Amino acid sequence: MKIHRTAKSMARAMAALRARGETIGFVPTMGALHEGHLSLVHAAKRKASRVAVSIFVNPAQFGPKEDLAKYPRPWRRDVALLRAAGVDALYAPDPAATYPLGYETYVVQERLPDHLCGLSRPGHFRGVLTVVLKLFQVVQPHFAFFGQKDYQQSVVIRRMARDLDLQVAVRVCPIVREPDGLAMSSRNVYLDPEQRANAPALQRTLRGGAARIRAGERSPARLLAQMRREIDRVPGTAIDYLAAVDPDTLDDARTLQPPVVLALAVRFGATRLIDNLVVR
Amino acid sequence: MKIHRTAKSMARAMAALRARGETIGFVPTMGALHEGHLSLVHAAKRKASRVAVSIFVNPAQFGPKEDLAKYPRPWRRDVALLRAAGVDALYAPDPAATYPLGYETYVVQERLPDHLCGLSRPGHFRGVLTVVLKLFQVVQPHFAFFGQKDYQQSVVIRRMARDLDLQVAVRVCPIVREPDGLAMSSRNVYLDPEQRANAPALQRTLRGGAARIRAGERSPARLLAQMRREIDRVPGTAIDYLAAVDPDTLDDARTLQPPVVLALAVRFGATRLIDNLVVR
Repeated sequence: MKIHRTAKSMARAMAALRARGETIGFVPTMGALHEGHLSLVHAAKRKASRVAVSIFVNPAQFGPKEDLAKYPRPWRRDVALLRAAGVDALYAPDPAATYPLGYETYVVQERLPDHLCGLSRPGHFRGVLTVVLKLFQVVQPHFAFFGQKDYQQSVVIRRMARDLDLQVAVRVCPIVREPDGLAMSSRNVYLDPEQRANAPALQRTLRGGAARIRAGERSPARLLAQMRREIDRVPGTAIDYLAAVDPDTLDDARTLQPPVVLALAVRFGATRLIDNLVVR
Repeated sequence: MKIHRTAKSMARAMAALRARGETIGFVPTMGALHEGHLSLVHAAKRKASRVAVSIFVNPAQFGPKEDLAKYPRPWRRDVALLRAAGVDALYAPDPAATYPLGYETYVVQERLPDHLCGLSRPGHFRGVLTVVLKLFQVVQPHFAFFGQKDYQQSVVIRRMARDLDLQVAVRVCPIVREPDGLAMSSRNVYLDPEQRANAPALQRTLRGGAARIRAGERSPARLLAQMRREIDRVPGTAIDYLAAVDPDTLDDARTLQPPVVLALAVRFGATRLIDNLVVR
């Protein structure tokens, strides 16, 4: 596995692969890899002849009070995992070269960011869209793989790909969970033992909500109130949002007729966890 | 010359060229072609093995009170000119397919648009950046060619290419002028005979300003006041802006030490003309 530290080096290597007729599957990450990321790598290997991964903790998608500085960066472990998974190229650019002095160009969306995570993380999706576009330009992948855990992210990126005529097929892969149901996340390491023990309540609540929809519940207000009570019963939690939304527009569902996405963000102390479930 | 009406068809043709080892030179235009555009095509032919041109009157870069509807669209003449110039592929997408229902993704810049043309055309450069990025994704050119007449446009596009890691070399080509000095523009056809006769005053004023800088003038206020008086003497004109700016940041020059760009936009009745001159 070749490690590229500059856009120039990575772009040249990827262009050479394409020129040889290889197909490129790309998995952008912020490192601190877990089984969720590795499931994306495996999906990329199944789909493309070559797999590229990026590790870049993107400053542009963190708010001033968020966890950019303390975000985990287990570099050697990440590299070993990717090597063992059979990744061909790793792109790990320098933040200062990615956003040099005088940098001023961003990708924005007009409506999708004003929902769910975007409401409590202003500028977050501008940062995500911008870095993903930049990574796509360097890697020029045929396929790119994202996890459904960041549901809104998957929607904004698919929308960007369509709107901006990006020549990449965006694939969204299922959430990978711990045995007790907690969605894998690089931020799970922030949880103390009690928080960790309580965190599976998120998925339990989502599954309970989905079961009630399948049983015929059609009132978002009633369902969300009930789910909210379940989360509120978990000690030390604070709900950031809990919503039932349209899978494409992310607008609040007016009725719970499937398809509908149940999505939530909940703080356990200082740690904010997200999860979701698509009811079809 | 193959004419492509959809992004899919154009992207496939361009990918096939790249896969065969051809290099692609790209000239994006809004049609109503003149010698300025053709000089870009010739530059592209010198630099690349294949030349692609787009014709797209981009709604996203016109303000609500601007000339989108009446912008000239001499399609058959344009096609004949490009064919005669030896262009390989013409991309002429449909506006409704380029900005479909639900479209919401744009490329923006934080500082460069707040200068010169951007001040009197809010949203203009957002539209330019977005469409150029989209065209680049479809055409995937090795080189792209723009005219210096739209000086601010050339700066924002070069900045975008650098900021977003676009794998395309942006070339800016000299202004092509009528024999009497008027910069070629698709909008020159709007001028009535008297306006057309007066329009060369723009370049005369720019050249006079440049001569005074070369003779040692260092005061922007004094030079611009003098140039402003010269334009004001031309009947039926209204100055939109007249500025001496830094070639890269477009900030007003605090002293006229070269390099400096003299740039102006002047209305002749309803017709807004721009011109500029780089003093090195």
